[in-house]
Amino acid sequence: MAKELKDLTKRADNYSQWYNDLVVKADLAEQSAVRGCMVIKPYGYAIWEKMQQQLDRMFKETGVQNAYFPLLIPKSFLSREADHVEGFAKECAVVTHHRLKNSPDGKGVIVDPEAKLEEELIIRPTSETIIWNTYRNWIHSYRDLPLLINQWANVMRWEMRTRMFLRTAEFLWQEGHTAHATSEEAQAEAVTMLNVYADFAEKYMAVPVVKGVKTANERFAGAVETYTIEAMMQDGKALQSGTSHFLGQNFAKAFDVQFVNKENKPEYVWATSWGVSTRLMGALIMTHSDDNGLVLPPHLAPIQVVIVPIYKTNEQLEEINQAVAPIVEDLRKRGISVKYDNADNKRPGFKFADYELKGVPVRLAIGARDLANGTVEIMRRDTLEKSEGKLDGIVDHVAELLEDIQENIYRKALNHREEMTVKVDNYEDFKVALDKGGFILAHWDGTPETEERIKEETKATIRCIPLDAPEEEGVDMLTGKPSHRRVIFARNY
Amino acid sequence: MAKELKDLTKRADNYSQWYNDLVVKADLAEQSAVRGCMVIKPYGYAIWEKMQQQLDRMFKETGVQNAYFPLLIPKSFLSREADHVEGFAKECAVVTHHRLKNSPDGKGVIVDPEAKLEEELIIRPTSETIIWNTYRNWIHSYRDLPLLINQWANVMRWEMRTRMFLRTAEFLWQEGHTAHATSEEAQAEAVTMLNVYADFAEKYMAVPVVKGVKTANERFAGAVETYTIEAMMQDGKALQSGTSHFLGQNFAKAFDVQFVNKENKPEYVWATSWGVSTRLMGALIMTHSDDNGLVLPPHLAPIQVVIVPIYKTNEQLEEINQAVAPIVEDLRKRGISVKYDNADNKRPGFKFADYELKGVPVRLAIGARDLANGTVEIMRRDTLEKSEGKLDGIVDHVAELLEDIQENIYRKALNHREEMTVKVDNYEDFKVALDKGGFILAHWDGTPETEERIKEETKATIRCIPLDAPEEEGVDMLTGKPSHRRVIFARNY
Repeated sequence: MAKELKDLTKRADNYSQWYNDLVVKADLAEQSAVRGCMVIKPYGYAIWEKMQQQLDRMFKETGVQNAYFPLLIPKSFLSREADHVEGFAKECAVVTHHRLKNSPDGKGVIVDPEAKLEEELIIRPTSETIIWNTYRNWIHSYRDLPLLINQWANVMRWEMRTRMFLRTAEFLWQEGHTAHATSEEAQAEAVTMLNVYADFAEKYMAVPVVKGVKTANERFAGAVETYTIEAMMQDGKALQSGTSHFLGQNFAKAFDVQFVNKENKPEYVWATSWGVSTRLMGALIMTHSDDNGLVLPPHLAPIQVVIVPIYKTNEQLEEINQAVAPIVEDLRKRGISVKYDNADNKRPGFKFADYELKGVPVRLAIGARDLANGTVEIMRRDTLEKSEGKLDGIVDHVAELLEDIQENIYRKALNHREEMTVKVDNYEDFKVALDKGGFILAHWDGTPETEERIKEETKATIRCIPLDAPEEEGVDMLTGKPSHRRVIFARNY
Repeated sequence: MAKELKDLTKRADNYSQWYNDLVVKADLAEQSAVRGCMVIKPYGYAIWEKMQQQLDRMFKETGVQNAYFPLLIPKSFLSREADHVEGFAKECAVVTHHRLKNSPDGKGVIVDPEAKLEEELIIRPTSETIIWNTYRNWIHSYRDLPLLINQWANVMRWEMRTRMFLRTAEFLWQEGHTAHATSEEAQAEAVTMLNVYADFAEKYMAVPVVKGVKTANERFAGAVETYTIEAMMQDGKALQSGTSHFLGQNFAKAFDVQFVNKENKPEYVWATSWGVSTRLMGALIMTHSDDNGLVLPPHLAPIQVVIVPIYKTNEQLEEINQAVAPIVEDLRKRGISVKYDNADNKRPGFKFADYELKGVPVRLAIGARDLANGTVEIMRRDTLEKSEGKLDGIVDHVAELLEDIQENIYRKALNHREEMTVKVDNYEDFKVALDKGGFILAHWDGTPETEERIKEETKATIRCIPLDAPEEEGVDMLTGKPSHRRVIFARNY
């Protein structure tokens, strides 16, 4: 263990390596024996569970229900929707057989050639196709609408270059799939879920996000409109953190899902889909953490407070144990998760470093002298500041401190984003700004061709057209054609 | 909808068809477009979620943490443990390729022959192999033990004959995988989890279970000992509802997982695994439900109480709405989930039948005359008894009634099991008893051969050797060889 606490790469030395190191050393995840698939370790999974629980509550508050659809999708389903197949039916895991048998040479097992499937099955890269094929039987009348369904599931996309949490072949996510009687209602739903994602990112992850619309180039395969929340990482790169799609009637037409409307006429159903994934873990890590390890927002930290006793004798430890017990109980009553680490096989210094690495927001250290004085040493993980507090009233103090940390790391991330966001009006300045990193607000002529050319020349993409972008007349940096508002360019994960 | 309420097959006419009908008509699940895979619909999933939440709490109380391991397992992993491969590496979904491409004829997509995997990957039928391959890197010293990990996941077994919830190709489950320093500790863990399962089944599902040990024939592939909880369905057939396995050092040896013990000597790690699945939904349905539909135990019912207004005029409805609002609020404060169904597009009789079909434990009906009299009609789903209650104090009454229903359906199921459990001492009586259904307590000589012969001749298997089976000298029904306790024979799902 001890060695893991050391040799965490510094962000300034190699940001990318720092991230990879941190994911492993903080016990969040590790590579598995299967190419591009990770193992999410208990500590990482505990954070994901807290995310899930909160998101699930927020979805349900909007009337969404959970369900579960099959992992495997018949190959032919993928090609029903023309754009969708281009986007999703290429790099994916294909099931072709349903049996193994003993190898004739007696060594292990081989695929039984007689157990070939008539039609190959694809491990879902996303579930629009199988779900809309199901909705055909569920939706007959406008009275069956809206249908608001979400599933928590694993999905698989055979990515060539993978990075833990950010881009893995298999990942965990939720995918919402809703059906509506009108275009307006479906569009409103897509925006509602975008707002849920933004609220979750800002209030729970403490990650400020820009809400916007994707350009046609960056749209989900099969969507009419893709909404996105975009976050900025500490290195100035953008991370798309969640998307919500207005799908029009594309999937309803591809799977023939019609309903009888109030005027008693058949009509194709209007759709949305929306999802966030374990990628949020990447956003969380890269937004707040530092060279000492993770910094977790208190609202999502599996352990919010750790208490470490400092003692020399067993008598001292016993006294501290007794003084700490009611504090632990009171913290728990307040709904604060606390760990009292009085394990005697590790020194306090080791424990301090370990909990720093793990991003525990507040650390209390209590020694024999503290007990005598009625004091406690308080360390807040976000600033690493230590202070002396009074044991009396410590629970209230910790509760306030947790909220303060939550706000502080959000504000810090917001300041960072604002400092790293610049307006640029010509292509030379654009390239200079890009190399510094951050979001660049620039005019764009609205054509895919210009966007594509900029991407090829600079590796920058349009992250989104912000929903709140003010109208402003200008001209495209490259083509000089007119533009009515600035869009956000950035390099991205 | 209305037609779904009718034509639910009667249990006496065709128990098996009744089950299939009920699963579909109560909106629990339906067949999907993929062979043997079901769609779990929102109402069914809501019950499963309540099961998950409670089980998850119970696991965590014993110190278990959640994590997530890859969906795909390299083919070669399956053949590392000799028994395991026989049990699991046969009927399974095999991924052989990782890319599709456009068909040359322009119609749809085909598997790209150039994207063949070097080693095929299997969709996990269970995860011992990939998890123990991972544990090799996590376990070095006795200080790393015990390791108590669970995952909630989907798994796939290419079953030939499937039935919703009871046996599906893909199913949802949890699988616990623990690692220990001693054989005793691992065995104790396997029993601890068996007890968690039994407590959950009895206190939440209201399903009485027999705890026992499986015979060698029925053991999990790769286990030294398999513990089971066995429930009896209304038709007298047994349903294996959860299993917990002591794996000895089999997987540690297969994946070379050693630790340095306290004596500083290398030793193979001791293991357990344990799981319950969406099969529990089948047990829940078949234990309590009747010819009117589902009967759900209050502790797992997504809606515990439904309130239906009976009115003729809008004024009456408005009055009832006002009277019901504080009752709904008070029920929710008590943690009771309640639905007030004042939708005006369905008649009360339709609503009554629908909530009966869905198994809502308590129904309150309030009409204008009730309001005047301060009364309410109360219907309990388990007995279908109606009574008149007072609006004053209704919340307390409902809370008590829910507990009473929970106990009553448990007692009813227990009585049924006791009535359907018989002792038999010769093979002729055995066959007669079998055709009546139920558990048969009989002597067995302990050999796989005898068990196998009985199975072939009668389709009965030994469900378990009950943990609390009293010692009793006897002789095997078939062979006349000595036996020291009775075991449970039954036909099973």
